[in-house]
Amino acid sequence: MYRSHSCGELRASDIKKEVTLSGWVQKTRDKGFMIWVDLRDRYGITQLIFDEERTPAPVVKKAKTLGREFVIQVKGSVIERESKNQNIPTGEIEILVNELTILNESIVPPIIIEDQTDDGEDIRMKYRYLDIRRNPVKNSLIFRHQVGMQVRNYLSNEGFIEVETPYLIKSTPEGARDFIVPSRMNEGQFYALPQSPQTFKQLLMVGGMDKYFQIVKCFRDEDLRADRQPEFTQIDCEMAFVEQEDILNIFEGLTRYLLSEIKGVNIGDFPRMTYEEAMRTYGNDKPDIRFGMKFGELNDITQHKEFNVFNTAELVVGIAVPGGASYTRKEIDKLIDWVKRPQVGALGMVYVKCNEDGTYKSSVDKFYDQDDLAKWAEATGAKAGDLICVLSGSTNKVRAQLSALRMELAERLELRNPEEFAPLWVVDFPLLEWDEETERYHAMHHPFTSPKPEDIALLDTKPGDVRANAYDLVLNGNEIGGGSIRIHNKETQALMFNHLGFTPEEARAQFGFLMDAFQYGAPPHGGIAFGFDRLVAILGGQETIRDFIAFPKNNSGRDIMIDAPSNIDNEQLKELNIKLDL
Amino acid sequence: MYRSHSCGELRASDIKKEVTLSGWVQKTRDKGFMIWVDLRDRYGITQLIFDEERTPAPVVKKAKTLGREFVIQVKGSVIERESKNQNIPTGEIEILVNELTILNESIVPPIIIEDQTDDGEDIRMKYRYLDIRRNPVKNSLIFRHQVGMQVRNYLSNEGFIEVETPYLIKSTPEGARDFIVPSRMNEGQFYALPQSPQTFKQLLMVGGMDKYFQIVKCFRDEDLRADRQPEFTQIDCEMAFVEQEDILNIFEGLTRYLLSEIKGVNIGDFPRMTYEEAMRTYGNDKPDIRFGMKFGELNDITQHKEFNVFNTAELVVGIAVPGGASYTRKEIDKLIDWVKRPQVGALGMVYVKCNEDGTYKSSVDKFYDQDDLAKWAEATGAKAGDLICVLSGSTNKVRAQLSALRMELAERLELRNPEEFAPLWVVDFPLLEWDEETERYHAMHHPFTSPKPEDIALLDTKPGDVRANAYDLVLNGNEIGGGSIRIHNKETQALMFNHLGFTPEEARAQFGFLMDAFQYGAPPHGGIAFGFDRLVAILGGQETIRDFIAFPKNNSGRDIMIDAPSNIDNEQLKELNIKLDL
Repeated sequence: MYRSHSCGELRASDIKKEVTLSGWVQKTRDKGFMIWVDLRDRYGITQLIFDEERTPAPVVKKAKTLGREFVIQVKGSVIERESKNQNIPTGEIEILVNELTILNESIVPPIIIEDQTDDGEDIRMKYRYLDIRRNPVKNSLIFRHQVGMQVRNYLSNEGFIEVETPYLIKSTPEGARDFIVPSRMNEGQFYALPQSPQTFKQLLMVGGMDKYFQIVKCFRDEDLRADRQPEFTQIDCEMAFVEQEDILNIFEGLTRYLLSEIKGVNIGDFPRMTYEEAMRTYGNDKPDIRFGMKFGELNDITQHKEFNVFNTAELVVGIAVPGGASYTRKEIDKLIDWVKRPQVGALGMVYVKCNEDGTYKSSVDKFYDQDDLAKWAEATGAKAGDLICVLSGSTNKVRAQLSALRMELAERLELRNPEEFAPLWVVDFPLLEWDEETERYHAMHHPFTSPKPEDIALLDTKPGDVRANAYDLVLNGNEIGGGSIRIHNKETQALMFNHLGFTPEEARAQFGFLMDAFQYGAPPHGGIAFGFDRLVAILGGQETIRDFIAFPKNNSGRDIMIDAPSNIDNEQLKELNIKLDL
Repeated sequence: MYRSHSCGELRASDIKKEVTLSGWVQKTRDKGFMIWVDLRDRYGITQLIFDEERTPAPVVKKAKTLGREFVIQVKGSVIERESKNQNIPTGEIEILVNELTILNESIVPPIIIEDQTDDGEDIRMKYRYLDIRRNPVKNSLIFRHQVGMQVRNYLSNEGFIEVETPYLIKSTPEGARDFIVPSRMNEGQFYALPQSPQTFKQLLMVGGMDKYFQIVKCFRDEDLRADRQPEFTQIDCEMAFVEQEDILNIFEGLTRYLLSEIKGVNIGDFPRMTYEEAMRTYGNDKPDIRFGMKFGELNDITQHKEFNVFNTAELVVGIAVPGGASYTRKEIDKLIDWVKRPQVGALGMVYVKCNEDGTYKSSVDKFYDQDDLAKWAEATGAKAGDLICVLSGSTNKVRAQLSALRMELAERLELRNPEEFAPLWVVDFPLLEWDEETERYHAMHHPFTSPKPEDIALLDTKPGDVRANAYDLVLNGNEIGGGSIRIHNKETQALMFNHLGFTPEEARAQFGFLMDAFQYGAPPHGGIAFGFDRLVAILGGQETIRDFIAFPKNNSGRDIMIDAPSNIDNEQLKELNIKLDL
């Protein structure tokens, strides 16, 4: 037996016990006649003492050879510590060692095993097995496990069945790029890895499974934006015989349960907002509502003067920055530079200082008088002491720009408290969105999303105005879940494929099995999927997912620890009936 | 709201309630003035009644159009049933319908949605979404979920952390064939899908995670024997600072917990047997010990006479078939034919009838007298009334043949009761096994398995005799789990790779990251993996896994429901820098 106790459990009440501990050498202090070693394992740190008077001489000698990250086993007795350490739970005791076994040595580790690190991302990833020894990473992985257990317990108690859907499925060119897998047994053919189990969960509903969930890996071969992974984990859910309201209630319940169990935060009914309102009020379909700075649309009260920039703009819109009236000219210029960066892309910014004395000072005083500016203040909710920032241009672009500014200012003003949780349902998403590149409509959610019945007539005339029974759950400005009520009859599905530009033959080849299934009594159904990596990160008070994934890939999709992907023997390719085409 | 209750929950105590139900039409009986419909959902069946006198006429008319598997919603009142059905929990009531909505129609389903089916495997798989509506399949999937939840709860309570390891990893030619995935972003390179998370779980141990588990999909591109799947699920576990004994205890605990919680079967300490003993006693490393028919080796007591077949045989071995003395000559001839089938491959079979009067009658009376045969009976444990079956030949072959005969006879004698559970640890597996084809030793478990320290010296002289710290958990003649204590230092691992025929360069290219990791304080560790599909099937009282998998593939690795794998656009291949090579 390698240990009688972990390195995190001995207390004053254990004094005089004979114990065996195993773990890693965190650090050693050698005073010559006395050596202290901090012994670390997953559960904590326990101090060992080797003492010339009380420890056998060969053991002391061996202790002097110990280096950082050596793996050792010690036997000894628990004694009271002279200078207690109140910072760790084992701080009242230490182990007077009388036997020491070196289980494995360590060369000098390339990263520091401490909570704080300034080691770079690359070296941490290359030696991820050492990085995981650090408490922040280790605890993030343990936290992820705990969230997963709570999700499963909640859904299972609600009658959901976790069903494993296949990973080797069929490629569908719609949506993001698939990863594909050549089949050796079926020459010239390929499997695809699932971007999500979407069609399978719908087939489970056709199969009467009623309530399904799965915590499941999904795959997308996309150029990786920051903080995206080619493989990611989803809490995938589907229910039959439900309307949108039923789904929102169940998964609001799940989220409330997680916030309560894991964070001790109790939240009542989640607010709801239509997509249209979210875009108008926050310029964004996943608004962070922990703070205000709501958009005020200013077209009516700005477009009657000689200021041509506004007069020709599709949208003139502003936000009030709390306390911003005190910004210096230089600070405001920097803000203007910030919105003009290519990543944001505004052409300029108009501002109004709301002075403490009730007067206004704007960058467009030439065109607007105090009465005009008072109306702007009213529309943006600006108070004395605030700064109104106004952008103008085409609606979609200017909303995105002002939303970016709003989030940036919130960061600077520290309005985004990671320990505050503000969930929000955004509902009534558009069914279709126009793609500039291909010049056709794409499904905003996916091709299985049901249009609102009252909007179906618009499909032919104003496709962009058709609303879907689709919803997102937003938490602190992050989309953590999204779903929809699905189409469940063959005709509507065919209509939808048609509007998405599929020929009947293409629809048949790719989704024939689903349309067939709809002929045999498909129930009304709908579902949702949560991004598990992100959900865990946000619950953990962070916004980057990487430390909540044990072995993440870098932005080129490489695992630099194992050095994958890698080259493959020609023989192996031959067997799969493929060859390189570089 | 589609329903106020499920189709499985209404009882006599609900009589007079107004309810809304939704589900599938299981069957209809139309008596003209009265129509009964069995309405089915995941939770059960409720009888609906449409009655000319009490139901609105248009509703009755609509009810007459209902076909099998139509999806409907009804509103009505719960009334007492005249002729009660004691076979179903809702059998005391029925619903007097006053509103009927057809939610979706169904064309005639190609398979029958009943518990018993004689529909073929192919059609059931093509319409798996209908097959899942059948209780046996639906309940198997629900059962699988329940086992999964119990496994997670047990391991989590024992301090294990579920960590998700990556699916896009690196191909290693050792072991079975990998499925590979071309990388678009890393030209000419490929990921592989994991055959198991073996190296990652070892790296988690190096990372101090201490106790890891994962219920995880694994992938092997092998020619599929019956009841194997290219993707399968594993309960994958690893622990640090453990010896074999610690691992056996924890996972014996898990298995005992599952048997108790799920089957209500309480089992004490699991018996243990060495690999050598299992092979000698049962001719098999996964013996079914629910019944006897142990092997009796007969070399010493058969090889002193003129019977050349035995005299030249490496092994002469027999089993006693309970009650087999009553077999007719014809029945015995059929048994002999059975062992001579190519799948078994024996050249013949010698038999001895142990008559009720204490005399013996054998097929080799010319060579052996009553005293000889009495010794055979003693060695095989045969009693009066039994039949001794004796095979001879080279040890490995004859053991496999007699083991096959033993299992076949147990089936015929109905000794394999699916509700009886007989777990067994088989320990001390050989480290290496000789591969006839490549004429070299392969790792019997995998290259990371630790040899028994006392046997390491034999690696150079008698590699086949080296035993490993490797163990299998056997349940009712099926290997349900297997694992080992791992190598945790670089030198032993290098030695092992060398003995497996890796050059240092090959070992470095494939497993360099693991050998590197061993330099930085790798703790002693070991683990086990359970075949989850098989475990669930056996706990469910079955030996085929297919109905415990929602969407299985056929023996050609095809999903015939979605018709995968399938062809891929040349453009998509081009983007991945590969082309077909047929």
